[in-house]
Order: sequence, then structure tokens, then C-alpha cells
Amino acid sequence: MPKIIRQKIEFEGRLEERDVVIEGEDLPAWSADERFTVVGTAVPRVDGRERVGGTASYTADLFPPGLLHGAVLRSPHAHARIVRLDTQRAERAAGVHAVLSSLNAPKIRWYSGVSWLFDPELRFVGDEIAAVIAEDAAAARDALDLIEVEFEVLPHVVDAEAALRPDAVLVQPTGNILGGAPEQYERGNVQDALGRADVTVALTVHTPDQLHHSMETHGSVAHWSGGLLTVWDSTQHIFGVRRQTAGALGLPLDKVRVLSPYMGGGFGSKNTAGKYTVIAALASRQTGRPVRVFFSRIEESQAAGKRPRSIQRIRVGARRDGTLVAIDYWGLSNVGAYRAFPSPLSGPPKELYACANVRTETASVFTHTGPAAAFRAPGYVESTVALEGAMEALADRLGMDPVEIRLRNYAPTDQVLERSYSSKYLREAYALGARSIGWQHRTPTPAEPARRGERRRGLGMASQIWGGAGSAPAYAEVRMNPDGTAEVRLGTQDIGTGAKTALTQIAAEVLTVPVDRIALLLGDTYFPYSPLSAGSMTIASCGPAVRMAAEEARRHLIDAAASVLEAAAADVRLEGGHFQVAGVPERKIALNELTRRMGNFTITGRGFRGPNPNDVTVRTWGAQFAEVEVDTETGEVKVLKVVACHDVGRVINPMQYTSQIHGGVIQGLGLALSEDHVTDPETGNVLDVGFDGYAVPRQSMIPEIDALAVNIPDPVANNLGVKGVGEPPMIPTPAAIANAVANALGVRILDLPITPGKILEALDQQE
Amino acid sequence: MPKIIRQKIEFEGRLEERDVVIEGEDLPAWSADERFTVVGTAVPRVDGRERVGGTASYTADLFPPGLLHGAVLRSPHAHARIVRLDTQRAERAAGVHAVLSSLNAPKIRWYSGVSWLFDPELRFVGDEIAAVIAEDAAAARDALDLIEVEFEVLPHVVDAEAALRPDAVLVQPTGNILGGAPEQYERGNVQDALGRADVTVALTVHTPDQLHHSMETHGSVAHWSGGLLTVWDSTQHIFGVRRQTAGALGLPLDKVRVLSPYMGGGFGSKNTAGKYTVIAALASRQTGRPVRVFFSRIEESQAAGKRPRSIQRIRVGARRDGTLVAIDYWGLSNVGAYRAFPSPLSGPPKELYACANVRTETASVFTHTGPAAAFRAPGYVESTVALEGAMEALADRLGMDPVEIRLRNYAPTDQVLERSYSSKYLREAYALGARSIGWQHRTPTPAEPARRGERRRGLGMASQIWGGAGSAPAYAEVRMNPDGTAEVRLGTQDIGTGAKTALTQIAAEVLTVPVDRIALLLGDTYFPYSPLSAGSMTIASCGPAVRMAAEEARRHLIDAAASVLEAAAADVRLEGGHFQVAGVPERKIALNELTRRMGNFTITGRGFRGPNPNDVTVRTWGAQFAEVEVDTETGEVKVLKVVACHDVGRVINPMQYTSQIHGGVIQGLGLALSEDHVTDPETGNVLDVGFDGYAVPRQSMIPEIDALAVNIPDPVANNLGVKGVGEPPMIPTPAAIANAVANALGVRILDLPITPGKILEALDQQE
Repeated sequence: MPKIIRQKIEFEGRLEERDVVIEGEDLPAWSADERFTVVGTAVPRVDGRERVGGTASYTADLFPPGLLHGAVLRSPHAHARIVRLDTQRAERAAGVHAVLSSLNAPKIRWYSGVSWLFDPELRFVGDEIAAVIAEDAAAARDALDLIEVEFEVLPHVVDAEAALRPDAVLVQPTGNILGGAPEQYERGNVQDALGRADVTVALTVHTPDQLHHSMETHGSVAHWSGGLLTVWDSTQHIFGVRRQTAGALGLPLDKVRVLSPYMGGGFGSKNTAGKYTVIAALASRQTGRPVRVFFSRIEESQAAGKRPRSIQRIRVGARRDGTLVAIDYWGLSNVGAYRAFPSPLSGPPKELYACANVRTETASVFTHTGPAAAFRAPGYVESTVALEGAMEALADRLGMDPVEIRLRNYAPTDQVLERSYSSKYLREAYALGARSIGWQHRTPTPAEPARRGERRRGLGMASQIWGGAGSAPAYAEVRMNPDGTAEVRLGTQDIGTGAKTALTQIAAEVLTVPVDRIALLLGDTYFPYSPLSAGSMTIASCGPAVRMAAEEARRHLIDAAASVLEAAAADVRLEGGHFQVAGVPERKIALNELTRRMGNFTITGRGFRGPNPNDVTVRTWGAQFAEVEVDTETGEVKVLKVVACHDVGRVINPMQYTSQIHGGVIQGLGLALSEDHVTDPETGNVLDVGFDGYAVPRQSMIPEIDALAVNIPDPVANNLGVKGVGEPPMIPTPAAIANAVANALGVRILDLPITPGKILEALDQQE
Repeated sequence: MPKIIRQKIEFEGRLEERDVVIEGEDLPAWSADERFTVVGTAVPRVDGRERVGGTASYTADLFPPGLLHGAVLRSPHAHARIVRLDTQRAERAAGVHAVLSSLNAPKIRWYSGVSWLFDPELRFVGDEIAAVIAEDAAAARDALDLIEVEFEVLPHVVDAEAALRPDAVLVQPTGNILGGAPEQYERGNVQDALGRADVTVALTVHTPDQLHHSMETHGSVAHWSGGLLTVWDSTQHIFGVRRQTAGALGLPLDKVRVLSPYMGGGFGSKNTAGKYTVIAALASRQTGRPVRVFFSRIEESQAAGKRPRSIQRIRVGARRDGTLVAIDYWGLSNVGAYRAFPSPLSGPPKELYACANVRTETASVFTHTGPAAAFRAPGYVESTVALEGAMEALADRLGMDPVEIRLRNYAPTDQVLERSYSSKYLREAYALGARSIGWQHRTPTPAEPARRGERRRGLGMASQIWGGAGSAPAYAEVRMNPDGTAEVRLGTQDIGTGAKTALTQIAAEVLTVPVDRIALLLGDTYFPYSPLSAGSMTIASCGPAVRMAAEEARRHLIDAAASVLEAAAADVRLEGGHFQVAGVPERKIALNELTRRMGNFTITGRGFRGPNPNDVTVRTWGAQFAEVEVDTETGEVKVLKVVACHDVGRVINPMQYTSQIHGGVIQGLGLALSEDHVTDPETGNVLDVGFDGYAVPRQSMIPEIDALAVNIPDPVANNLGVKGVGEPPMIPTPAAIANAVANALGVRILDLPITPGKILEALDQQE
């Protein structure tokens, strides 16, 4: 029976106390010594064949009959006001079915209300002016040139520090800091503690704008049919897109269906509906035809979001034995014109280490650049560069081993909320990682910087803290078919991580059927509600619901088997696809024979993912170690090896765990060494559009990667013991590489990416 | 909690005792004096706008990108063996992607195992030889001519009586009677009773082959993608098509999805998967492209099934007061080459009247003609012509009123199973119908036949008995969305009857929300299992599950509202979309405010349709009255008015009830007067292909129709009190018209359709 509990839940972006209906009691967690046959094994991707073979149909692959194509006219100015807009010539162009703009589109609020779908004030190069919907993509693009726009060009600002000056042009009328003022936190007394410290280290760190560059660009296909709006979207949250699209168009939720059966990457940039989604939906309503609006790779560079560039200052004070006495952290994120949520830069400085005196001040600063979006551990990646750079600098200063200084300041409990962690095996991650990289061979960081002309090797490391408890609610259902196959349905999405495979494994384990006898169906808002796939949350959110649904189906199957076998249900075991009366070997029935006998009387199990525990903090932990070789003649950094060891709770699939480590390390390596999304301060133009201009890591840059895991289930996070591995491998990678470069060179380069030019400049300056 | 019960259920065509899992206790039935605001009102079709406006997407409308088109080569002979088949030229033709035939297709059993998907022995003109799959429909059709076939032409038989002769060519190796021998039934002693009767009447009746001619022809679109076979099918049973297609292709059920979101009529001919379905699926697997195989209107005439022509002999004996003493009934159905289920001709003779001595002998006879399919009350329509013709002839003979003689023989209980009826309001139907048609003005049937040259009017009537209890299992789920809208999901199909609207009304009634705030989603095997939409069963099967799902959602909503309103759940009422604490007017909350406050913690209700009561018989009842005018000069019959009055339990939507009456009357009128699917005995060719050759009723033939209902809920059939109105209006229509013509002319024409030629011939013969 359901029950009502009062629970803090996120609703439309706000945390609110609400009465929620809980479907029932959660299951006790799988214990650490449970024996599994499917969970924990390297099951290949259940949809690998179609993803690799090209038969999987992504949103970008959809070209339904009668499809119209959209193209978007974007602002050429960093800041301007539209003083005249005439779309009539475009409307009359051959093949054009509609032109949407501020002239005719409904006034739909955007960016949490600070702008409009088509805002007459343009705030970055790439801001949307109008959309043309035409018979084919070329006709749509051609007609963009026929739209007449007269701009009043306004002064702009693209630099965060410049945007904070009193005389700066306002990007948003309420001021250039999101929320009006920086976010501040302090525990203890940082000022006093720093004064009493034996040693202090101060660093200034810059991290670049980093682009997500998902293989599938951002886009939607919308189709009205029979009073129902169907949206195919390359998204990380089909239910969120449903809510936002229904809200934008004033539709009831039951008339909107969002699908995302296969999805080609998002990394946080596809957490919400795009303007392209709503444009496609509006245009489909107007034209009565399906409409496709997809980003080109260039638009992907301009308007798809970015990890915002940061400026950070950190000062740590410690006693001579390495014990931290204070952390003073300040950080700015240059979030572009419109970002809606506060910067999470302060997470690691506040929480990673045991320290009585911590102060953070962080701000998201509006500028006339493309809007930031969440990007795989937003804020955490950036501030880990500062924090973990400071820790290694402190170790260097004190002549301590960097692992040793981290252990000296190990936080046994949550320093912010002053409560326990559900599980923490960071110590074990340090030990395993150090052994694999050969940390014992590390030489101390040279006191003098390297000279030009040598090849220098260095070792560096960094720690990681992140959430990953999953979030409630999530629902799932399992239906047994008459032939003993099962369908598992839930409205999550597999954003490329392998969630489909891991969730299949969970159901297969419970039902004791092979994974190929289970269809795991997701990516459809007709399926049970599931939350956002972001923040390493998918398996921790949805997996427990799948397990519970499978367990309910299993209980009902056992009841039915007990009836057929004329035994008490308590005596019936399900093992290896057979129901067996305990102690009576001949009294058994195969699962598929049982379901066959029931015909169309089908067993369905429902599962529910309950709220997180209220009294403990759930975190993932990890450490990464990098070995680099720097050519001081050319300034090139070659990463030789990265060792990653994380505590992410139970590992459902070690192969997929490894894939996540690889992806995170490579994406982090790009931020550390090559990726920088540069905006021309004079014009506000993005200077490195597409894959030609923007240096994602090439194959030649990829190091040996050793993916290790502290594979110990979390006892309370959820009924599976999983936490999550999406973000963790990204977080410490840039910091570890920067620290390794410092260890190699004796000079700490804190302006990422660490390009050859910066290395040579740093070496030259030190000389 | 679920429980296990032992239940007779239909499984793969056989009734078997099985252990089935019942989801829980059924709800008590809605009582007769329940007050409703939505149920019982004339809600317009919820999908009427898109059905009429052309935006509804039927299977026939689907042309996905990359679609290949199939065309089928059919036998030109009524009976032949393929001695050589060469498809190579066709395979090499431009645009051809595949040719499937007995040469290369897997051996897939068809027609319940008596034939193959591609059988080298061909048994009717139109039997499938091969299928070409090509880039477009024209290329596929053209390539059919390139297939070389050499036939050994074999002797054939198209007439049922000829097929029963000892020397007849065998259509099936086991003999030309389905099951080897006629089905026989006897209670009492018919021979003796007829000998003792005061009066006997004997009639010989012929009814024609009748074609279903659904507006949407038979066809499927199949598409393999990512290891999953998706089939869109114009079907009355998506789950049956799933089972049959998976079985034919050797696939597990979880890898097959069948969709039928809109469907353009079936009338029983789309109860199962077609060869076209499996051909499309095989071809899609082979080519990796979506494949469409749809019947042309001509193929619809040849191979889509038919109501089989019948020959019937009936003899009834009665006492002078009209009391029946014996019914002796014999009937043959000419079911073509392959029909798999026994003829249900004997239903009305056995059960409609109280009679101690009844004998029936019926047989389905194989001939070399197109296979029969179920058609809106199969058998019942045909034998009602005989039975009710005999009753009126008996009334004429005894000088009694035809209504009076029926009341004299009113069956208070089930004469076959000797148990009660759950409800029977046939008496009331007689009274209401007689009043509307003006039965009191009926003149006795003239003893002398009419003379040529006059216009003669006549009144006739007939009764109807049919099932309609619905069938188990059926499942449904209701999900509340955060904005208070609801989605109702179930895997039934709306075959054009308006099931979608009626099911929406049931949910709306329970949830007290407007019908336009509910999306009723069906036609997808990803939704909960629902049975075949045939036999008047859809609402009686699925409606109770929808009600139960909505009631569960309602209970959970009340729990949540009670928590918010700080009241006991027992004190909270849901009325008009608001939760209200009894007696405290100010303590209330709107449903959509409650769901909004719960955010994504969504309430879902599940419903289950339990087995039928085991101890009573559930039947629908009805009477129809026809007034005709016969032009004895031209032989033309003009039906002036038909009054239909049926007891089908509770009427959910009177407008849709009326629509069903209209459809059934018109389809019955066609059988009575104009439709006859004629096969040339020499060649086995169908002589009246398409709408040119086959005379479905034209608008000019449609009479005034008065649709009356005995709207009294059945107390035990299911929790709604509904029976079903699909078949009932079809059953008595031909009999009532034939009886009216006899009343007009004084001569009983028993060879349907009653064409002008037959009337003139009969009049001439009587003279």
C-alpha cells in the first residue's frame, strides 16, 4: 500500500517540502557478500550491435515522411537590439513554409524567465533571431539570408572580471552576478587561522571554456498528429522536455509525448529542452507537418552550452606536519548571457578535506557570450584543479609526499553537514592507484624549474569527490511474457553510458534469465517516470526501481509456481530459470513453462525508487594519478599513463565502468592540455568553431589508462549499493595532469589548457 | 496481493484449465441507480477530429523513410500444384530487393497447421505463390509478371454440397468437413416431438458469401531496428499478431512490438496476423529496410476472408397455441479452403427459444474458394434468418402475431447449460421496438402472393442472441501527471467502434476530470495486455480494467489529499475535480493542485479484468423490426425503416451505441438485399472484385433507423454492467428484412440476398 511522506523534492528547479506518495517499502539493500551471476560481470552492451552497426535510430536519423527542416538565424553581434525585422521575403521564398520570430511567435519565457524564445535584445553571437521552416534544409538555410534585420549595436562585455566592474555594461537588468551577489560560505574563522598557519600556499587558477561536442548535435523532431504532440529529442531528460515543451506551448502534459530511444551524448548540455525543441513544436503545429530542427556542428560551438571558463584564487594554510588549518577559496564562472543555476565551484573546497576553517566565495558572472550549461561535474572539475594544485604545492613546500598530505587531512565525516558518509573508500583508492602508477618512484618536484631542451617526466595526482546517490522518484515495470521473456520499461534514457545494459543486468539477476531474454525499453514518456540522466545518477536512480519491479514479478511468479507445484511459496526457489521445491528435486518447473501455462494472464511487477536517506551523506570518491613527459624544447606534454581508482559503490558492469573511466580521462585530458573555446573580446565571435578549430583530444594523445575500482557496495544509498561513475573520472584528471606537469618541470602552470606556448613561456619566465 | 486460481482460459485456440494469477479482488459492480456525469452521456469521439480531418495515422498511411513495397503473386487456379517456380528474372528486375516464395522462405505453418506460408499446393484463386519486395509499389507489381510458374492444374470444387459427395476432390487431406464430421447436438427427442407436433414448418435457407470490405484494407508495415521487430498492423488484436509473428519467425516475444494506433475496420477479418504480416516481417529482416505489404481492393475481395455462404434446413414443430415442441436444424458453411474454427451456426437454434427438443447438425465444408473469416456475429446472422424466418412462418401458419409467438416461447433460462442468465430484457426490447415501428398496424401476411405491378408494404421482425460478456484477462493502467491530466494505457485497439471514447469516459467518471484531460492510449503491445477486439467484447473486457485502474489511482489520490488536508482518508471525497473534507467546506484542494504539489512523485493505478462468472450465462438480447416497400413491377425492395432495440447492459455512450446500430443495420441490409460474393464454379474465379462489382449498400438504400436501448446494467457480467453492442445490431437485420418482404408479398424468399430478380421469379413461380 502506498503511504504519504513529507519530503524535500526538486520541483521546477526549486527544492520544496512536499507530500509525496511512496509506493511502498523499499527492499533491503543487496548485501556486500551476495553472490551474483550477471551483476558485476562484463556483459557486452545489449544494444552494442545496433549502435555500432548503424541500425540504431537516433533522433538525428529521423526523417519521417513530409518532414520540414528548420534553420535558425543567429545574432552576428555580441550585444544588440533588433530595431527592424522583416521576414516577408523569406516567407515568400520557394519551399519556405513558415518563419518564426519575435514578430509572430508566442511570447515564451526562456532561460528561467530572464529572456524570451525570440528576444529582441540579443546577448551573444549566436543568439536566436528567427527560424525558417522549409521543404528541405538548403531552402531553409538559403532563406535565412532573406530575413532583413536592422540592429542597434550595443556595447558588450565578454570577460568576467570586466563584467564585474561598476561601470560594466549590464548583461542582465538585475546585474551581472547571478542572484545579485556572490554565494558565500564560511565555517570557523579563515582569517584568523591563516594568520596562525605555519605555512600558506596561494594559487591563481584559470580554466577554459570547454565545449561538450556530443557526437549527435542538439536537435529535435516534432510532430503533431491526432491532437498529440510527439517530440523526438536528443535529450538527457525526456520527462523534463515534456514538462518544458508542454509549458512553453500551453499544453496539458497528457498531450505531449517525448521519445529518445537512442541518444548520442550530452555530458550535461542536454539536460533541458532547447529552443530548437520548442521551435520545432511550434512549427509543426503551424504547418501540420513533422519538423526537424538540428544544430550544425558550428551552431554546436556557438549555442549548445559550454563548461564556463573560471578564474579561481585559493589560499591554504597548514601546520608544519601538513595538517590543514584553513582554506580560502574564491571563484568566478563566466557563464555567458543566460545561465540559470549557481556555480557549484565551491563543492570540493568545502568538503574534500577535514578542515575547521573554510571560506568560499563563488559567483556566476553574466557576459555577452554563449550560455553555459552543465558539463560533466560542473564546477567540480575546475575547482579540483585549484584545490588539488594547492595540496600538491603545499606538499612540495613541506617536502611531504602528496598522498601522505592528503591522508593527513582525510575527512572521516561530512565537514559541511556534520554527519556520516554512507561509505568512503578514498583511502583504498589512493593505495590502489599509487601502486599501479608506481608512485614510489616519484621524484620530488625540483626546486628549480627545468631548463629548455630536456625531456622531463613527472607524476601527479588528484582526488575526487562527487554525489551520485541517485534521485527519487523513479519507477519501473517488468512484464513477463507467455514465452518467459521479460520486458522492463522505464522512462529513463541511455545517453551513451550503457544504462540500458546495466539495468538489463539487474533485472536478469533477479529473474535468473539470460540478458538476451529481456528487452529493456526506455526513452519514452509513456513509460514510468524516471529522472534526469546526469550527475552520475541514472543507475542509482533507476536501478533500484528496476530491481524492485523484478523482485515483485519474481514473488508473483513464485506464488504461481507454488500453486502449480502444490507447495508453499516459502519452499519454492527460483534458480537458473527454474522453480524448485526445496529438498524435492523432481518437483520443479521452468519459468517459461510456468508463464506459458498462464497464457495471457501476465505477471507485472512494479518498482519504485524511494527517497534518499536523510541522515547520511552519499558521495563517490576517487583518485587519479598521471605520469607525463614534457618536451621542454617544444613545450609538448605527452601523458604516458593515467591510473584511475574510484569508490562508486557496487560496480554493475566492469566493462562499462572502464568505458566511463576512459571517457572521463580523455575528456579531462582535453581540458588540461588542448581544449579552449576562445571568444574574440572585440567582436564577441567564437574563434574556434567546429572540429577544425576546437582541439578535442586526438587518438595520438590518449595515454595508457588503468581503470581500477574499489568495488564495495554502499550499504544505505539504495537497494543496490551503487553510487555512480559518470562524473568521477572527469573530475581529477585535469588536476592530476597539471600536478604531474608541475612535478616534471618544477614550475606550476595554472592557466589551463597547458599548451606548449604556456609551458615555454613559463620556463622562459622562470629563467 | 495477487492470488492464483484455476480457470478455463483460451490458449492458442484451445480452452484449457490453467493456473492463472489474478491481480486481486474485483470491484463490486456499479449499481443500477448509480448517478453518473460522463458515463451514459453522448460524448463525441475523443479522436473524431483527427479521424475525420485526416491527421490520424492509420497503418495504411505509414510510409517510413527507406520503405520497400511488397506485392503478392496469387494463384490463377482454384486448385493446382506448382511444378516449377523460377523467380530469378524477378529478382534481377530493377528496384527489386527480394522475392519470397516456397523456394527460399522458411517453412512456416499457416491456417492452424493445414498449410504453409507458401504452399506448393494452391487451393483457391488468390492463394499466395510468391511476394516481390521492391523500391516502389509499381516495381513490385511489375516484377510479379517475371516470376515463372508452371502449374499442374487439379480438379476443384467450389460448392459445399458438391464437396460432400463421396467422389469429391479433397480440399484438405483429412476430408472436406472441418474436424472430419459435422458437429451434432441434441436435447430431448426431436424425431418424436416433431411427430407429435400440431403444426410443423420447414424452410430451406441460403445466405451468400459476404465480404467485410473494411475501409482500410488488410496490411502491415514491418521494420527491424536494433534487434527489435516493430510491426504496424491493421488488426483487431495486436497481442495476437505479436504472438503469431514471433511464432512464425521464431522470435522471443520481447523482441516483437505490434502497433495499431488507428485502425480502419475489420469486422472479424482482422482477428489474426495475415500472411502479409509475416511476409513484411521476413522481408524486412532480409533487406534491413521497412517493408509495407498491403492488399489492393481486389485482393481484399479475393483473400481477405468472407462470411461463408450457408445452406440451412430448419423444421420447427409447435402446438396449436404456438408453443414450440421441436427445432430440427441443419446447416452447412462453405468456408473455403482453409478455415480453422467450427461454424457457430447452431447458436440461435439451440438457445434462443425455450424448447425441450432441439437437434442441430452443422458443418464447415472446405471448398476451393477463398478462406472464410469471422464476420460480425459469424453463423448467428445466417442461422437467425432461418430460425426467425421459421418463427414468422409458424406465426403466419397459426394466424398468430409474430411477437406473441416469440413471447410464448420466451426462454427464461439458458436452455443449453441449464442455468440462469445474468440479465435478459428481450421482452422489453420487443415492447419498445414494436411501439416504435407501429407494429399494431401490421397486416397479416397475405395467404396469396402479391401480383405483379403493385407496391406492397410489409413489416417483419427478428430477435437476437449473442455473447458479449467480455473476456479475461485485460489490464490497464492510469497515470496521473503533475498537471492533473491523466494517461490511461492499455493494449487494446479501437477498430473504429469508439472504444477509445468509451474507455475515456469510464476513467473520467472515476477521476471526475473532463474527458479532454485524459489521454487514452492504446494500440501498442508495450501497453498492458488486452484481448481481441471482436465478439462485442472490447468494452466488457477492457472497461472494467480501466475502471479498476482509475479507482486505484483515485484511492491513492485520496490518501495523498487526506495527508495534505490533515484529515482521515475516509472523510475525503473527490467530486468535480476537488478533494473535499466531508462537512468542512473550506478544507479542500483541487486535484491538479494536489498532483502539482507531488511533482514527479506520480500516482499510478493498475486495473485488472477478472474472469467471468462461472455460474451464469451472459448474453445480449435484442429485437429489430423492419418496414419495407416492394415494387412488384421491378422487384426492388426499399427498406423504409428499421427499429432496433437491444439489451446490451449499461450503455456507456448513447451516441456510439447509435453508431453501432446504424453500422450493423446497414451491413445486415447489404446481406439481405444486395451483397453476394460470387465464385465462378467453372474457374473458381471471384466474379465481383472491388466496389464496382460488389454491391455494398449505397446511401440511397439506407432507411430511417431508430436506435433504442434497454439501458439496464447487467448485475454480474463485470464491474461496469456492460455487455456489448458490436454484433447485436447485425444479427437480426437480414432476418427482419426477409420477414418483412414475406409479410409484404405473401411469399417467403429464403435465398439471400433478396434481389429484384429473385422477387420477380418468386412472384412468377407462385402465379
